[in-house]
Amino acid sequence: MSRHILLLLVLAPAFVCPGRAANPEQEIDVFNRDFRDATLRMDNAAAMALWDDEGVTLLPGLAPIEGKKTIAKWLDDVVARMPGYRVTVQENSFHDLQVSGEWASEWGTTHQVVQPPDGKPAIDTWGKILLVLHRDHDGRWRIREEMWTQGTKP
Amino acid sequence: MSRHILLLLVLAPAFVCPGRAANPEQEIDVFNRDFRDATLRMDNAAAMALWDDEGVTLLPGLAPIEGKKTIAKWLDDVVARMPGYRVTVQENSFHDLQVSGEWASEWGTTHQVVQPPDGKPAIDTWGKILLVLHRDHDGRWRIREEMWTQGTKP
Repeated sequence: MSRHILLLLVLAPAFVCPGRAANPEQEIDVFNRDFRDATLRMDNAAAMALWDDEGVTLLPGLAPIEGKKTIAKWLDDVVARMPGYRVTVQENSFHDLQVSGEWASEWGTTHQVVQPPDGKPAIDTWGKILLVLHRDHDGRWRIREEMWTQGTKP
Repeated sequence: MSRHILLLLVLAPAFVCPGRAANPEQEIDVFNRDFRDATLRMDNAAAMALWDDEGVTLLPGLAPIEGKKTIAKWLDDVVARMPGYRVTVQENSFHDLQVSGEWASEWGTTHQVVQPPDGKPAIDTWGKILLVLHRDHDGRWRIREEMWTQGTKP
């Protein structure tokens, strides 16, 4: 066997399953960073890339929003109603990560600051979040269920 | 081998692992029924029997309540502040049950009616719930994380 073929065999799993290059805990650290960054940048495409096709989001006072396409439309509508708003702080602190096969869960506390346009006062929101994650066919962890509710300032 | 020993061997697994007598989905159906019944009866001991020692409840406007003992004290305090109140309706409809090894998750919609004493108007509450369940050493499914938030009347 040539050295090139050997090298290919060694590297192949990293190309086939990019999400599996690290252990699940490291993979979900990356997910958590991407999740925070997408919110901070108000990047709906990046946020939706983190959702399972059958994902459900459960938010205060709303009916359950079911399915990636429905969530994407809802998120686009939310951002469209906030021209000039910017997320200036998004801090999520996650706890009790549990991974079992292709499924994982974690809960966290969240802190978000949104700056409205025209110098209006910033909106400071503390909350709690619970996520159920599913590792998709491509090896990436995606949100199957997300729930958020109001928290308290520590 | 005597007939008695044979009978003991056949029956033993049911005694050793009562929670594993059925498949996980059936076990969690039983959990869901017990969970609803404990709330309906305002039976705090029965409710707390359904919690993992390291369980966390995440409720609107409150800090996370962490650990079975802390949750038990909080629940006793809540019920102590409601003398004469009765839960007359508790309907939970669960969806997307996923079981992976010793871990499971499900989300649901909830409808609760609480009747205050002295003929005051009933309190009608619609909500959404997300549960992460863990199968304990005794084979029983218990709540690791519970999150609830306000929903909408269908």
